[in-house]
Amino acid sequence: MRRVEVIGIEGMPEIRPGDDLAAIFLKALREKDIFLQDYDVVVFASKVVAKSEGRIVDLSGVKPDAAAEKLAAITGKDPRIVQLILNDAAEIICVGEDFILTETKHGFICANAGIDESNVEHGKAVLLPEDPQRSAAVLRRKIEAATGKKIAVLLADSCGRPFRIGVAGTCVGFAGMKPTLDRRGEKDRFGKTARITIVAIADEICAAANLVMGELQEGIPAVIVRGLRFKLDEEQQSVKTLFFDKRRDVFRTLACKQHFLAVKNLREGQNTLKS
Amino acid sequence: MRRVEVIGIEGMPEIRPGDDLAAIFLKALREKDIFLQDYDVVVFASKVVAKSEGRIVDLSGVKPDAAAEKLAAITGKDPRIVQLILNDAAEIICVGEDFILTETKHGFICANAGIDESNVEHGKAVLLPEDPQRSAAVLRRKIEAATGKKIAVLLADSCGRPFRIGVAGTCVGFAGMKPTLDRRGEKDRFGKTARITIVAIADEICAAANLVMGELQEGIPAVIVRGLRFKLDEEQQSVKTLFFDKRRDVFRTLACKQHFLAVKNLREGQNTLKS
Repeated sequence: MRRVEVIGIEGMPEIRPGDDLAAIFLKALREKDIFLQDYDVVVFASKVVAKSEGRIVDLSGVKPDAAAEKLAAITGKDPRIVQLILNDAAEIICVGEDFILTETKHGFICANAGIDESNVEHGKAVLLPEDPQRSAAVLRRKIEAATGKKIAVLLADSCGRPFRIGVAGTCVGFAGMKPTLDRRGEKDRFGKTARITIVAIADEICAAANLVMGELQEGIPAVIVRGLRFKLDEEQQSVKTLFFDKRRDVFRTLACKQHFLAVKNLREGQNTLKS
Repeated sequence: MRRVEVIGIEGMPEIRPGDDLAAIFLKALREKDIFLQDYDVVVFASKVVAKSEGRIVDLSGVKPDAAAEKLAAITGKDPRIVQLILNDAAEIICVGEDFILTETKHGFICANAGIDESNVEHGKAVLLPEDPQRSAAVLRRKIEAATGKKIAVLLADSCGRPFRIGVAGTCVGFAGMKPTLDRRGEKDRFGKTARITIVAIADEICAAANLVMGELQEGIPAVIVRGLRFKLDEEQQSVKTLFFDKRRDVFRTLACKQHFLAVKNLREGQNTLKS
C-alpha cells in the first residue's frame, strides 16, 4: 500500500530568541529514538522559526501613525499591530472586516503580513521570519549535516483562504524541494494529456503537518512527513514561486482593484479610505 | 509520538456508472488485509463517487447556447463544457483567463462547477456528484454497517486557489465529522484566549489524502487517514457550512462585483460581457 506518515515531534521546549532550532529538533529526535530517512520532509511551524530568530516585537514600543489608526478603526485590530503590518507589507491587496490582506516585502501573500499575537507573551507579537527561504535553507543544511540524510524542509503557517471557512496549514518557506509538482504533459489513465495540473504539494504537506501540530496548546512545532515521492531540489527559489504572477492573477488585477486603490491612497498620505 | 497515517487503497478497479463504490472499497480492504478502525477518516476522490452515480456526460449531446459560446471565447474553454458549467452554476462569481469561478446549485464554490475531462473517456466530462453530502452520508452508512466501525467519510477534489499556484486536495463533501474545528475560546500556551482560530480540518485531511491519491495515473481513489483527533458528528450539515456567508465574504461582496455584474447581465440575456 502506498502510505505516508505524519510524525509529530513532541518534547521540544518553548523556543526563545537565539535558540538553535535545528539542534533542539535533533535532540528531540534522539530522545525519542526517531531517525531521519532520505526523502523525509521536516515541517517547522513558522512561528518557532521566527521566535528563534528573535522576530518578537514588544507592542509597548510601537507608535501607530495616522494610516495605521485609520485601518485599525476599519478592521477592529490593535493600531500597533496594524502599524507592524504596514511596516512589513510591500502592498495591501484588500481589507476585510477583520483582516488586512498583504503582499509582504519578501513576496508572500497572507493576511496581516503573517503577524499575530497567539502563543507569545501578553503585549508581544510575532512577525514572520525575516527571510523564510533562507530560514528553511539553513535548517535543512544543519539537519542534513548532522544526520547525513537528504531531506526537504518546509515552514508552515495557518492561513485563511478566500471563500472557505477556517485556516489551513500552508507553506510559507521551502528548501530542498520544489513547492509544486508540474504534471502538465503527463497522460491520464485514458491517454489524455494533462493541461493544467500543477499540484501544490508543499501546501498539501503543510496541511497534513498541521493536523498533528495543532494550533494552540499542543506544542508540536516540528513534524516529519515520511513516504512522499518528490525530487530533491538544490535550487534556491524565491518564495514568489508559490504565487501567481500579479499581472496574471484575476483576483489581484481585476477583483481587488477598488480596495487596492483606496488603501494605496491611504498609504500615500491622502488619508481617505474611499470604499 | 503523535502520528497520523495516510494509507492509499490500491487495487480498486475503474469505477463505472451503477457500481457500488462502498462494496468495491470494502473488497479492496479485504484483499489487502486492511481493517478499518474507529475514528478512521475514509477519503474518496469525488470523481469516482460521481462516476459511480453516473454523472458522466457525453459532450456530443451538449448544445451550447449564445452565453456559453461567449464565455467559451473569453476563457478558451470548450463551449460544451461551458454549457455544462452554466447548467450546474447557481451563480458565476468571476471569470478568469482560463476558468469560471462558480457557486454550484448545491452551494459549493469552485472553478468550472467542478466539471472536468480528465480520467474519463475522450469526448466525455465528469460532473460533481449530484449531492455530495448525500453521497458522503451513504458511503459512511454502508461502510459502518459492513465493518461495525465508527468513521467519517470525506469527498476530495483537487481545487485551485486564489493567489497560490497549483491545485490542492479540498473537501467537497463530508459525513460523520464537522469540517471545521472551532477552537475559539480555548487558551494558548500563554493563557491567551483564541479569538479566530477555526481550523479547516476537513480540507487539511483531503490535502493529506491527495498526497497519496495523486492526480493522473495512480488510480488510488480512496485513502484512509488514521490517528486523527476529532468528534464524530451525526448531524447532516449543508455543504454551505464550508464557506463564508456570501454577505460577509469580502471577495464576493466587494472584490468580484464587477465581474459578477457583467456575467449576470450575460446570463440574463443581455449578451454583453462588459468587463
